Amino acid sequence: MYNFDLDAYYTDAKLTYETRAEIERVADEVTKEGFKNIFFISSGGSLAVMRPIQYLLRSKTKIPTYCEIASEVILTGNSQLNEDSIVITSSKSGTTKETVEAIQYCNERNIRVIAFCGKPDTPVDQLATYSIIGKAKDAVEFEYIQHYLLAFRLLYNNGEFDAYERLAAQLEKLPEDLIAIKEQFEPTAAAIAEKYHNSNIQYWIGGGSLAPEIYLHAMCILEEMQWIRTKSIQSAEFFHGTLEVIEKDTPVFLVKGVDATRPIDDRVENLIKKLSDEAVIIDVADFKTPHVDDEFKEIIASSIVTTILDERLAIHYERVTGHDLTIRRYYRQFEY
Amino acid sequence: MYNFDLDAYYTDAKLTYETRAEIERVADEVTKEGFKNIFFISSGGSLAVMRPIQYLLRSKTKIPTYCEIASEVILTGNSQLNEDSIVITSSKSGTTKETVEAIQYCNERNIRVIAFCGKPDTPVDQLATYSIIGKAKDAVEFEYIQHYLLAFRLLYNNGEFDAYERLAAQLEKLPEDLIAIKEQFEPTAAAIAEKYHNSNIQYWIGGGSLAPEIYLHAMCILEEMQWIRTKSIQSAEFFHGTLEVIEKDTPVFLVKGVDATRPIDDRVENLIKKLSDEAVIIDVADFKTPHVDDEFKEIIASSIVTTILDERLAIHYERVTGHDLTIRRYYRQFEY
Repeated sequence: MYNFDLDAYYTDAKLTYETRAEIERVADEVTKEGFKNIFFISSGGSLAVMRPIQYLLRSKTKIPTYCEIASEVILTGNSQLNEDSIVITSSKSGTTKETVEAIQYCNERNIRVIAFCGKPDTPVDQLATYSIIGKAKDAVEFEYIQHYLLAFRLLYNNGEFDAYERLAAQLEKLPEDLIAIKEQFEPTAAAIAEKYHNSNIQYWIGGGSLAPEIYLHAMCILEEMQWIRTKSIQSAEFFHGTLEVIEKDTPVFLVKGVDATRPIDDRVENLIKKLSDEAVIIDVADFKTPHVDDEFKEIIASSIVTTILDERLAIHYERVTGHDLTIRRYYRQFEY
Repeated sequence: MYNFDLDAYYTDAKLTYETRAEIERVADEVTKEGFKNIFFISSGGSLAVMRPIQYLLRSKTKIPTYCEIASEVILTGNSQLNEDSIVITSSKSGTTKETVEAIQYCNERNIRVIAFCGKPDTPVDQLATYSIIGKAKDAVEFEYIQHYLLAFRLLYNNGEFDAYERLAAQLEKLPEDLIAIKEQFEPTAAAIAEKYHNSNIQYWIGGGSLAPEIYLHAMCILEEMQWIRTKSIQSAEFFHGTLEVIEKDTPVFLVKGVDATRPIDDRVENLIKKLSDEAVIIDVADFKTPHVDDEFKEIIASSIVTTILDERLAIHYERVTGHDLTIRRYYRQFEY
């Protein structure tokens, strides 16, 4: 694969999975202490990575779950966010301003915070009630794996997810499947980047639990790292306006999911194939995960999408455009 | 004002306010029966109109509140949605497919549904547990007024909003203020439409409780009714990607709100003024509502935004582009 370091990937996978024991220890401790609801609080890409899990939890647990944007909730409050809550957050740098402020907000109110933190001895690490240090470099799928472990351990402890041990064991092997999936997608990634890197605007559609991952790809990768104009839209919402701006030559990408909302994706697929000659369908069902049971496919679908889009398609855009993925013209370049 | 029928507006305002007694009767009845949480369920613009209220309720009531897209929740379920819930929905036509299906889903599970319905003897009217028939023709602010009455009556009944009678009385006069606000905004509406009707893409930013109304304007008005490309983005999220695609000549609209999240809007304002020569700031604080107390301003802010954007700016786009707001090329034009 172009610009892909297999050894480094396996090292990151190993470092990620090594946090399993600590994640479970933290989950078991908060379960023992008791809690009444779960809040996922962060911003941008980090929040987008938690939303697919929160979406699935809506129907898998009786525990109420909520997502909040860090900088908003510290200003507005939320009546459900109190001493009986568990807050889950994450920060790669350990210094993300909004996240640090949200943890401080929680500390002042005796609200417990579990943080996935990329660097020890940072504010996030020091301030969070529980800080789980992840040593993997980068790749969103490793963040997802940690979130799956934490969320479903909490459900297991609550008597709502008997299959936890099996899921957790299989997640160790998921990266092997993701590598095969990257390879399977490689020609498609190259072709999309070559064909669409100059497009005026790209529409990205995804539904159900995958909508936030599509939002992440459109905003945090294509806009932020390639300065390509995009609009992402939830499958069910596409029918309520955005459909009208699609023309025959408009690039429209649909990522079809495998959760219960798939019939809505089917409906979008039928429509966009009629509206545009540039409709591109990417179907999670086409990517097999021999190491992970089918019943968990909806859970790990977000990892599959991030591995093909954020980790492969993005690399091919970088190759074609010559625009380094790490360059920012505004973000963190000056005070605002 | 261009293409504005004052008498018709006052008639609609009167017809809307006439539903107050019935809204209160329904609210009082469900309070008497008891309920544990509130779900707002709909799609597209109708759901976008409920989200600002749900956003404010997060911090104003101990009652958990949730928003769900109708076509998704009937496929996925939500563990919090059960016999102890109250569902609030709305449909102008009374026939919206997803809404009808969501009500049927609720009926099968003994979940009570309160529907704001635009037409009697329609499926929504017949299927909902409580159907409140609104006879006002159109204008999103009238939908908002009904939602304010219902939501805050429920809070009042729950001992969490003593000011209800005052708010409800003042809402009768709100349309007078909205007319003055329309007039104040008229030259701006005309100028924006004239200057930006041919823009390649428009960015629309709003935060906190107003983000859904901005989403509505961008998607349900500009995209659906004018086929103008837009991207709407939450103020807090603008910093996490979309900022990078803003150039000196990119039209960027920020609608500044008056709820607790206003400091985030301030930060966006500072930034977009640096990034673009075409940054347009629309500030809700600039529009006075002499008939409504300041403490309610954050509640009625969504009405102010809809009255200036969806009801006035849209009309001026129609004037300038000659593109009738009622024309659709795809929506409900064929089966999909």
